[in-house]
Amino acid sequence: MKKRKSAKKKLEIAFRSGCPIATTLDLVGDRWSLVIVRDMVVGKTKFGEFLASPERVPTNILTARLQRMERTGLVAKQAYQSNPARYAYRLSEKGMALLPVLQDMCRWANAYVPGTWTPPESFMARRVQPPLRD
Amino acid sequence: MKKRKSAKKKLEIAFRSGCPIATTLDLVGDRWSLVIVRDMVVGKTKFGEFLASPERVPTNILTARLQRMERTGLVAKQAYQSNPARYAYRLSEKGMALLPVLQDMCRWANAYVPGTWTPPESFMARRVQPPLRD
Repeated sequence: MKKRKSAKKKLEIAFRSGCPIATTLDLVGDRWSLVIVRDMVVGKTKFGEFLASPERVPTNILTARLQRMERTGLVAKQAYQSNPARYAYRLSEKGMALLPVLQDMCRWANAYVPGTWTPPESFMARRVQPPLRD
Repeated sequence: MKKRKSAKKKLEIAFRSGCPIATTLDLVGDRWSLVIVRDMVVGKTKFGEFLASPERVPTNILTARLQRMERTGLVAKQAYQSNPARYAYRLSEKGMALLPVLQDMCRWANAYVPGTWTPPESFMARRVQPPLRD
């Protein structure tokens, strides 16, 4: 499990169990990954755009999370400029398929945590390809 | 934000923003909290039962997470024995309302991470009281 501390190395994730909940948390169970997924769902693609979000992700954490999400197939990056190289980060189908989790978190927080923002209807109404098994 | 590192103190959570996704992650955005919620959904109530789950949560982390979940109103504890005191931990309505998030994580991992267990139908079919706003 120690191996997972370095997001820079190309290591396999050591899943704690076959439980699909624990497995999901092995991949995105932290304070930032799903915030970054949220930003990508609403169309942000650039490192600076993620940094500018109101939660103010620290640069080193953003770098580590993007690398892990790329390594685990949630995100693909594409150079949109060279000298210096700049990348656009976009969700894969696998990454975009996390949207129902985000929508449920919105419903939950709106119902149980006073003062949370109501998300745009376009965000809540968006549907992703249903998974193969249900 | 440093304050949140100690789960033992009775401190307010400092939410990073009003975003309902970021807020949910301020409360349960870690590798363990939703695994413990899962255990409670399926009827586990005792400290030793959570420890015995296949993910093998470390004792100190379990203690910290239970305290935080109690402090944030997700879990209520009740003594079921004295000398020594032993507690049963159960989800509040607010805690149980996280079930759709867990179910979506199951669907996602079953669809995108090969080898994950198929959850019991009773778990996936269970419905909680719908939130006030949707």
